[in-house]
Amino acid sequence: MKTRAAIAWEPNRPLEIEEVDLEGPKAGEVLVRIVTTSLCHTDLFTLSGRDPEGLFPCILGHEAVGIVEDVGRGVTSVAPGDHVIPLYIPEDPNCDYIKSGKTNLCQTIRKTQGAGVMPDGTSRFSYKGRKLFHYMGTSTFSEYTVLPEISVAKINKEAPLAKASIMGCAIPTGIGAVRNTAKVEPGSSVAVFGLGAVGMAAIQGAVLAGASRIIGIDTNPTKFPLARSLGATDCVNPRDHAQPIQDVLIEMTNGGLDYTFEAIGNVNVMRAALEACHKGWGECTIIGVAGDGEEIATRPFQLVTGRVWRGTAFGGVRGRSQLPDMVEEWLRGDFDVDPYITHHMEHEQINTAFDLLHKGESIRSVIHFDPRQTLKMEQLPGTLVTR
Amino acid sequence: MKTRAAIAWEPNRPLEIEEVDLEGPKAGEVLVRIVTTSLCHTDLFTLSGRDPEGLFPCILGHEAVGIVEDVGRGVTSVAPGDHVIPLYIPEDPNCDYIKSGKTNLCQTIRKTQGAGVMPDGTSRFSYKGRKLFHYMGTSTFSEYTVLPEISVAKINKEAPLAKASIMGCAIPTGIGAVRNTAKVEPGSSVAVFGLGAVGMAAIQGAVLAGASRIIGIDTNPTKFPLARSLGATDCVNPRDHAQPIQDVLIEMTNGGLDYTFEAIGNVNVMRAALEACHKGWGECTIIGVAGDGEEIATRPFQLVTGRVWRGTAFGGVRGRSQLPDMVEEWLRGDFDVDPYITHHMEHEQINTAFDLLHKGESIRSVIHFDPRQTLKMEQLPGTLVTR
Repeated sequence: MKTRAAIAWEPNRPLEIEEVDLEGPKAGEVLVRIVTTSLCHTDLFTLSGRDPEGLFPCILGHEAVGIVEDVGRGVTSVAPGDHVIPLYIPEDPNCDYIKSGKTNLCQTIRKTQGAGVMPDGTSRFSYKGRKLFHYMGTSTFSEYTVLPEISVAKINKEAPLAKASIMGCAIPTGIGAVRNTAKVEPGSSVAVFGLGAVGMAAIQGAVLAGASRIIGIDTNPTKFPLARSLGATDCVNPRDHAQPIQDVLIEMTNGGLDYTFEAIGNVNVMRAALEACHKGWGECTIIGVAGDGEEIATRPFQLVTGRVWRGTAFGGVRGRSQLPDMVEEWLRGDFDVDPYITHHMEHEQINTAFDLLHKGESIRSVIHFDPRQTLKMEQLPGTLVTR
Repeated sequence: MKTRAAIAWEPNRPLEIEEVDLEGPKAGEVLVRIVTTSLCHTDLFTLSGRDPEGLFPCILGHEAVGIVEDVGRGVTSVAPGDHVIPLYIPEDPNCDYIKSGKTNLCQTIRKTQGAGVMPDGTSRFSYKGRKLFHYMGTSTFSEYTVLPEISVAKINKEAPLAKASIMGCAIPTGIGAVRNTAKVEPGSSVAVFGLGAVGMAAIQGAVLAGASRIIGIDTNPTKFPLARSLGATDCVNPRDHAQPIQDVLIEMTNGGLDYTFEAIGNVNVMRAALEACHKGWGECTIIGVAGDGEEIATRPFQLVTGRVWRGTAFGGVRGRSQLPDMVEEWLRGDFDVDPYITHHMEHEQINTAFDLLHKGESIRSVIHFDPRQTLKMEQLPGTLVTR
């Protein structure tokens, strides 16, 4: 079949929307019509060429929501018509990692996913006979995409498709990091470095966990009003201080934070986030993804005196078993996705979405593949980007 | 009063045993007669000049057992005649860190202890009018020493004084790192880097925790028989392999260890210990103390994919409330201190003990201050070092 897809031909080149050939789902695969997709810094990161796993040409995109259109042989857990969120970390109940109960890092299709292909080693996408790589096993910048069955989470059909893409990465990553990885307790002090969508969701997670003090940190103070409205008790711009930010925070908190989160991908900030932790028990969780070959460093004394350094991917969330419940939390009103959505646009405007994200002017831009169906601004947060 | 003490005048100079002046205990302090003390790598490390906190001239020594001889005003928890183990990490029940229940890192006297003086800011030791610094708040290379009340743990008088010094550092540090810091579960796989006394005790701790596989790692294979006798299931010499040791271990364990421990103080080994951990859940605990200014580094990807980096001091043991119970465990036969004791000697031979430790020829040398009382070789493990 044919599908409209945004092709990333090479790093740092604007995406090009083309009619692409898409093979139907093979055994264990599903065909999904993407209704909306949003842009995450990871897409930007890969397009920048700094992602060691980036393969070109490819179809980017991993934060989306769609409807199952067709399923391959042997698929039993979803059927056409189901609403699903694509999972860049799949969940195969037969994977030893998943069975361990200790991690969400399913390994079943890790190698092929990392190689930009489906589990059988081939791509479903091509353009004029030239193979296009899949990206993160999801490739949601295409109206239709094919995913492994273990890479889709079936969600409540009542979740508004115009907003639900945000549940594909930012929200579970931020809230999950607080809840599943750091396991923040009520009354804790928390600092979040980087106030993009994931950092904002970490603030949201800290509120849900009952943290008593929540400090948002960013060099872009235009992020502070939103951070405060989500629950940050303090916002700090490191550029306002001559001292290193870790010293500022230790002073502000009389000894350091119980929990810190790095949601940028900057190795120097990762160090600051660890060193801002309270001696004896403070824990730093790295959420951001650093560039190829970059390393974190600190004096081991920081750890020997009781700080802990850990990391998280997709907030430790097991996508198929836990994400549908997070969608229910949203629908129940435990938290809202509206604050994360700053812009809406059509597929053809996707490069504008990249620009807005790159400039720090958006939190999340939602791309609508069928604007007549979902792009009803009177019901949506954020602003419409017109051509 | 006068006491015989080994003075460290400056880095890398043999200790000199002199008649030293010792002031009696002030308020909140106790005078302890050290019966035996043993040598730990931290003493060696400080004498080498690499310890950023090292102050000279000082009286080294922190792994010991003794008898309370006198107490200062206000001391209520110990009395003359009590058998005590000096604590280089004190336990003050009124310290906020101790009250948190999250750490053993009591801060009450941290500043003065780090400055080589008693809590009132002065030293009790002097030689011909020249002030000598205390070391780690303990200074056990002196027949008599003065300590804060919160820096002694009262133990069962049935514990043999000729061996109990080992309970002052090596054993609680190694067993505690496994039990209190890493919280190793039954059936886990464990690797211990560095087979000195602390590493050996970590192996012992892994056995007590029910670990199913325990790998000891050292470049000195003469340590392997003891490691095996304590419970190591495998021993590996990194020099026998062309690959990095982390790769060797990942291959041996089909993916990496559940828990690793660094008991050396080498920042490169600390990295290897982290990277030898199993993706998704492996945890590395740093026990060793690195040199001044040295840093650990790794790719943050190691943490984002589920490994955890932490550290421990004194095995997370709260000395006054938990160490006496560990002595009971020893007396009950849950573990034995004998394997750690390789040599015995008199105070005057202390530089020989440093040499043996430096050359890797001893695990622990026990210094006997009153050989007639405790140096009965027919009842002791290890060998007697004759002058």
